[in-house]
Amino acid sequence: MKSPSIIQRLLGSVSQRTGQRKGLDRDARKTVALCRDLLSQRGEASGAALAREALAAYNALQGPSLEAFIDVLVEEFSPAPEAVNSVADAYRQDPTQAHLVRLQRAVEPLRLELFRRLNLAPGGTAALVEMRRRILQRLKDRPEWTGIDADLAHLLASWFNRGFLVLQRIDWRTSALILEKLTQYEAVHAIQSWQDLRRRLQADRRCFAFFHPALPEEPIIFIEVALTRGMSSTVQPLLDPNSAVADPTDANCAIFYSITNCQEGLRGISFGNFLIKQVAEDLGREFPRLKTFATLSPVPGFRAWLRDAAQELAAVPGGPALLEQLRAIEAPDWHVEGELAKSLEPPLLQLCAHYLLRAKRDGEPLDAVARFHLGNGARMERLNWLADLSKEGMARSAGIMVNYAYRLDDIERNHEAYVNRHEVVASAKLAVFARACALGSAPKP
Amino acid sequence: MKSPSIIQRLLGSVSQRTGQRKGLDRDARKTVALCRDLLSQRGEASGAALAREALAAYNALQGPSLEAFIDVLVEEFSPAPEAVNSVADAYRQDPTQAHLVRLQRAVEPLRLELFRRLNLAPGGTAALVEMRRRILQRLKDRPEWTGIDADLAHLLASWFNRGFLVLQRIDWRTSALILEKLTQYEAVHAIQSWQDLRRRLQADRRCFAFFHPALPEEPIIFIEVALTRGMSSTVQPLLDPNSAVADPTDANCAIFYSITNCQEGLRGISFGNFLIKQVAEDLGREFPRLKTFATLSPVPGFRAWLRDAAQELAAVPGGPALLEQLRAIEAPDWHVEGELAKSLEPPLLQLCAHYLLRAKRDGEPLDAVARFHLGNGARMERLNWLADLSKEGMARSAGIMVNYAYRLDDIERNHEAYVNRHEVVASAKLAVFARACALGSAPKP
Amino acid sequence: MKSPSIIQRLLGSVSQRTGQRKGLDRDARKTVALCRDLLSQRGEASGAALAREALAAYNALQGPSLEAFIDVLVEEFSPAPEAVNSVADAYRQDPTQAHLVRLQRAVEPLRLELFRRLNLAPGGTAALVEMRRRILQRLKDRPEWTGIDADLAHLLASWFNRGFLVLQRIDWRTSALILEKLTQYEAVHAIQSWQDLRRRLQADRRCFAFFHPALPEEPIIFIEVALTRGMSSTVQPLLDPNSAVADPTDANCAIFYSITNCQEGLRGISFGNFLIKQVAEDLGREFPRLKTFATLSPVPGFRAWLRDAAQELAAVPGGPALLEQLRAIEAPDWHVEGELAKSLEPPLLQLCAHYLLRAKRDGEPLDAVARFHLGNGARMERLNWLADLSKEGMARSAGIMVNYAYRLDDIERNHEAYVNRHEVVASAKLAVFARACALGSAPKP
Amino acid sequence: MKSPSIIQRLLGSVSQRTGQRKGLDRDARKTVALCRDLLSQRGEASGAALAREALAAYNALQGPSLEAFIDVLVEEFSPAPEAVNSVADAYRQDPTQAHLVRLQRAVEPLRLELFRRLNLAPGGTAALVEMRRRILQRLKDRPEWTGIDADLAHLLASWFNRGFLVLQRIDWRTSALILEKLTQYEAVHAIQSWQDLRRRLQADRRCFAFFHPALPEEPIIFIEVALTRGMSSTVQPLLDPNSAVADPTDANCAIFYSITNCQEGLRGISFGNFLIKQVAEDLGREFPRLKTFATLSPVPGFRAWLRDAAQELAAVPGGPALLEQLRAIEAPDWHVEGELAKSLEPPLLQLCAHYLLRAKRDGEPLDAVARFHLGNGARMERLNWLADLSKEGMARSAGIMVNYAYRLDDIERNHEAYVNRHEVVASAKLAVFARACALGSAPKP
Repeated sequence: MKSPSIIQRLLGSVSQRTGQRKGLDRDARKTVALCRDLLSQRGEASGAALAREALAAYNALQGPSLEAFIDVLVEEFSPAPEAVNSVADAYRQDPTQAHLVRLQRAVEPLRLELFRRLNLAPGGTAALVEMRRRILQRLKDRPEWTGIDADLAHLLASWFNRGFLVLQRIDWRTSALILEKLTQYEAVHAIQSWQDLRRRLQADRRCFAFFHPALPEEPIIFIEVALTRGMSSTVQPLLDPNSAVADPTDANCAIFYSITNCQEGLRGISFGNFLIKQVAEDLGREFPRLKTFATLSPVPGFRAWLRDAAQELAAVPGGPALLEQLRAIEAPDWHVEGELAKSLEPPLLQLCAHYLLRAKRDGEPLDAVARFHLGNGARMERLNWLADLSKEGMARSAGIMVNYAYRLDDIERNHEAYVNRHEVVASAKLAVFARACALGSAPKP
Repeated sequence: MKSPSIIQRLLGSVSQRTGQRKGLDRDARKTVALCRDLLSQRGEASGAALAREALAAYNALQGPSLEAFIDVLVEEFSPAPEAVNSVADAYRQDPTQAHLVRLQRAVEPLRLELFRRLNLAPGGTAALVEMRRRILQRLKDRPEWTGIDADLAHLLASWFNRGFLVLQRIDWRTSALILEKLTQYEAVHAIQSWQDLRRRLQADRRCFAFFHPALPEEPIIFIEVALTRGMSSTVQPLLDPNSAVADPTDANCAIFYSITNCQEGLRGISFGNFLIKQVAEDLGREFPRLKTFATLSPVPGFRAWLRDAAQELAAVPGGPALLEQLRAIEAPDWHVEGELAKSLEPPLLQLCAHYLLRAKRDGEPLDAVARFHLGNGARMERLNWLADLSKEGMARSAGIMVNYAYRLDDIERNHEAYVNRHEVVASAKLAVFARACALGSAPKP
Repeated sequence: MKSPSIIQRLLGSVSQRTGQRKGLDRDARKTVALCRDLLSQRGEASGAALAREALAAYNALQGPSLEAFIDVLVEEFSPAPEAVNSVADAYRQDPTQAHLVRLQRAVEPLRLELFRRLNLAPGGTAALVEMRRRILQRLKDRPEWTGIDADLAHLLASWFNRGFLVLQRIDWRTSALILEKLTQYEAVHAIQSWQDLRRRLQADRRCFAFFHPALPEEPIIFIEVALTRGMSSTVQPLLDPNSAVADPTDANCAIFYSITNCQEGLRGISFGNFLIKQVAEDLGREFPRLKTFATLSPVPGFRAWLRDAAQELAAVPGGPALLEQLRAIEAPDWHVEGELAKSLEPPLLQLCAHYLLRAKRDGEPLDAVARFHLGNGARMERLNWLADLSKEGMARSAGIMVNYAYRLDDIERNHEAYVNRHEVVASAKLAVFARACALGSAPKP
Repeated sequence: MKSPSIIQRLLGSVSQRTGQRKGLDRDARKTVALCRDLLSQRGEASGAALAREALAAYNALQGPSLEAFIDVLVEEFSPAPEAVNSVADAYRQDPTQAHLVRLQRAVEPLRLELFRRLNLAPGGTAALVEMRRRILQRLKDRPEWTGIDADLAHLLASWFNRGFLVLQRIDWRTSALILEKLTQYEAVHAIQSWQDLRRRLQADRRCFAFFHPALPEEPIIFIEVALTRGMSSTVQPLLDPNSAVADPTDANCAIFYSITNCQEGLRGISFGNFLIKQVAEDLGREFPRLKTFATLSPVPGFRAWLRDAAQELAAVPGGPALLEQLRAIEAPDWHVEGELAKSLEPPLLQLCAHYLLRAKRDGEPLDAVARFHLGNGARMERLNWLADLSKEGMARSAGIMVNYAYRLDDIERNHEAYVNRHEVVASAKLAVFARACALGSAPKP
């Protein structure tokens, strides 16, 4: 937060620079002018009216106009280096709290104050989440947008603090508007129809989402749970819209079979960890018979890694024969031939265990889903053969799925082991599989 | 937002320093330890559980323990100067967006991340608002707390952004819990009883408050409005619990007769400007006959200034006689003697006009209420004689009150005139009064 | 409402009779026993617990058990004739208010008190509505159930008094549970899919339903409205899920294109009249530009009547040729042949006008939809050719639809004309069509 | 529910009679005319508009106009005896269900249909409850109003069926509007101030009320409960606004210390029984440690009975001395003299036990509170000496109070014993007291 006089001085330079800037089309120019006004005294006097106007102008930008506008935010609403350096000098000579505060203010870009003022308008928060989504989409090509992305990420992480999120149960009483959005967002096991969705909300299923008060009809993240007897080893029965509805009070397992982040613009802000733990806690209270809380998760990177590992595999004893055998899984529907599937089970489970436990990048598991659950303190519990027979499931992991178990008493220890030592906490059975793998036990970079 | 690895490194030094620190009692030591845990991997793994524990420990601190804890936050959860300086150097040599982001991270104290994590616990937001209140109370004696106050102010200003506040009408249907709080908070015209409060919520009165979703039963700021025929010139009739209730659809004026900030811990964060403007807009829509939106405001500093101005007054022509005449207002109940009151009206109104228009500090009016409304773009419209006969009203301003008028079309221009040139926008009549004052027209510092 | 002592005496006889009754199976016997208990002191003491038990027993009855139970209600929970006659004598001799009250109590069957006590249990109201539905289904075969049907109808009409119903807008924010029910209930233009439903809830459509507080998730009746420019003459564009969404503020017509009673158990209790008028009033307030409120209604009985009228038609001049011509409409898709359709338009519109204006039973129009809207005070405004090309629309009315117009100023007069003189209020154009019909002007019984 | 044609015929006669009636003032005449319209076709066509108009006219009636209007309802909106008699004859000759239905319709006064139609207007239900209150106030002087009172009582009992009532907890979060009403209605232990009320709503107290959906801001009945350790023997500590708040989870008793019917117009319709039982059930679920559910109740008729019993007492052995001793309680504050109070305890408790167990009218206890709780199935558990020291408590029962215990397992048996045999179920100790009473054991009429 900057004082009006500081903003005024900074705006002077912005105004000069934008005035000279070439190639800014009319819409972008108008938006920049409104944003400048919003940061000026006019903005303070007008309350939310000017924020509405500026937001509407911004929302209308598209394509090159939008990019040009973001470029202006990057180039002209950043701190002036000379000002930063001068305050940094003062701090260096006398590192008091007062100088620290001045330095904090000096490094804060003016655009951050602009974002906060745009938020005065209805729809402001949604627009800022969306702005970050657009920036992230282009970030690879526009490395100079790193700063504005960091500003938005920092601001949104503060605003979407877990303390402000509200957990809501989603069921058939939820509004169609929100249900429709879940259908659109679901990324793990696509919802095929309203009938499919309906089944996922019946008595032996649960769905929960986090919402933010400023986005009351936009789920931030949601999780789908099946209440079952025994830890599920295949996902299709859980997804079958025609399956019989069981009595949830008989269940001893809560299976988290899908978790989806809905807002691309909030990427990198962690919600899943909180959601899983709160849902586990709440369900445990509602159904005291529940003993096991575990996921039934995909192994998204297995087959891609397997292809990359072919050369390495070719070099180990038995490797060429194995590669030959594995060619079978290129055929569609190989899993329906009982004998073939049976013969492939041992080597594929061993390879998958190897992939999950030993394939690393920068010391962490290659597999993104593994990283997420291990980072949350879960334990890699069990591999499941022919567990996901969908086209996607076969393509990404030859149908293999993993149960990650969340045990309240172990979560903290597991998490520390993972974070401090990158240790992959797994069941003995999984370790046995990995050891049996032809690729041997050496971790691969 | 700092990445876990950065936090880990910073915590190392915190941990060392606190270990050596002397004189930290058991409760403070325990709280510091929990806060450190909360920032560590344990904090990430445990979800909200550890935040609840740390918050409970903090909430139990009092007196010296609390101060010692805050001292630790100041001394050990601040950035290390050498780290800041080193990143500042990198930025100086190459002021890229990436270096800027690093510098922003380097100057952010670890305690800010601590505050964000404490907010995971229920009641976290309220505790942080309360923490700032406690810090502000002692800030004069503890200048080294400037930095932590600035951190909290910055964080709370972001979280209590107008876009997240919800305007609610307060009436007799509101919960007793909230009504009781209004009674406790009301700072301008004390609410004497439930009957008094009830009158302020009837058909020809309105009360509105801003609420934040994380504090659903805590008003942030509230405003009281009377719907009247003609601009009110005295406040007692508005406050009379036994006055007849008028038909609000007959009203042509909305008189804002009280506005109260409820949360001392949010001091310096501006809400009143937004509240007045939104309420004026909403009332204008509900009652199209409303033509005038104005306050009936106290002049809190008039008599204190008058005492200070005695010497100066003694030196101007006619001054001594005036001072002699003014001695009458030291007597209690001087205003009930008609002749006396009549004779005092011209000189006191002139002096008050002089005070409001010309008594300045750093170029701005001495009077805090004047600064607030002029800064919002209002115009000083009318002085009212014998307008507030309460003990407080007589003591602070000899019973004089001011109407500040909010005219939609002029707000922006008035605001700019005030902010840019410290111009006090006032009616011609007020200027005439000021010119007639014995103290003459020269602004006084 | 009967006093406990009266109930006690009456129950004595019930108990005796049921004891002797043959052929009552175990479930029915148990239910009767619980109902008797519920009416006894035990029922009074136990609060709602016994009502829950009795309701559960009743809900479990099916087929013959259910019928046997209803028979018991008819035979044994009716007033004893001798008791009625004796009180009737007392009244005849001295027709005081006190005797009248005694007679009112005497003719009230004990089962009515039973129904009121069953209503103590959660779900009681729904079960009673459902009980009447089951009774109505069999009423033709079981004339002795007339009395119990009348009791339920009287009770439910009192409970579902318009004053207790709540009008709710249905839109895409409504719960999926309720939306699904609308889809199941919609009787006029079947909802094909969630996409179809979604289109009917967009900005240029409106849907409203009445709900009762005791059945919060059960619509009682609902109406669908299109906001259009000009009075709609064909229904398929209104129903097209892919049609463009118009700006409702441009509309000058509100077209009621579907109205559906949802609860068969509330048959004969009038809701539609209230619903249409309140919706018209509310929409008129929201959209001041709306000038026309009219239906686009089916003519459900036209072709059935036309078949019945063949003999009569054969006897009038030109009739045989007309009959010959009309044979074309037996073919599927006759309407797609432009020439043919064009040639059939005049005779079919004339016959339809004749049917609507002159085909009567007991003095009232044969057509049920006409009776409903004329009884509400609407005017038969316009016939629309090829207005409903759906299979059902072609089958029931050769695709013809009618606009009934609701004009606030005329409703009362139209209603009186209809109720007192069975006058069919229609536009001049419709009268012209009817006069041109080969069947001539004589009303038919 | 009558069919339109029947209503029309009946209205004809009403119209004739009212026309000739003398002495009806203008307001009453207008109201009668609007009521007649409301029952006519105009009423059916106009929806709720005419009901609003008629209700407004009725609401404006006062004093003689109101009485005259009610007289018209009695005299002219009753069934015509000849019509009733003729249908009664038909039923006598052939007592079919169809004839029964006709007779039910014939004895139903037209005013009942009028009430149902008035209910279409907003506020209709409240107005009808209020109408009955007004009728009850005058019923002693106007015995001819018995019929209309019975009609309203019957209708309201049906509408306010327990199944439609909603139990709501009342606490400090409840709206001031409702809290204010509780204060006005509380009839047992007057609420002295908002502070008093506040104490009754804190953590170790509970308050619950029944509401009806058509009267959302009007409590129907409410009950106040204290959660205590041990069964309370004195009421002042429960009512003390400054008493310390206990932890409710420590409580083993729920003491119902006040229950108040709020709506005089619903007199005779039983709510208290349901309320006590549901609250006991709900509290038992929330606080599993609760073992005792009992009241702390006044003995409203004790001293009045004692005065009446003086003659009888004078005639028994020891009676004159006892009477002499009892003269002490005529003095104010006799209870503060320790010795005196001690000496009076045995005889007064014995007399009170005698009063409660043996003083009867028509076989039932004289004491209204005893009748209520015994009728609900409670047991008279304990007499408490100096239990209510308030002025009212001393005046009505010399400070004695009773605990009535509700034991789930015994309620049904107790209720039957009371209803069938007028047996007063009481503890052994109470029986001992009664036997020791000088008046002996013979029940007195």
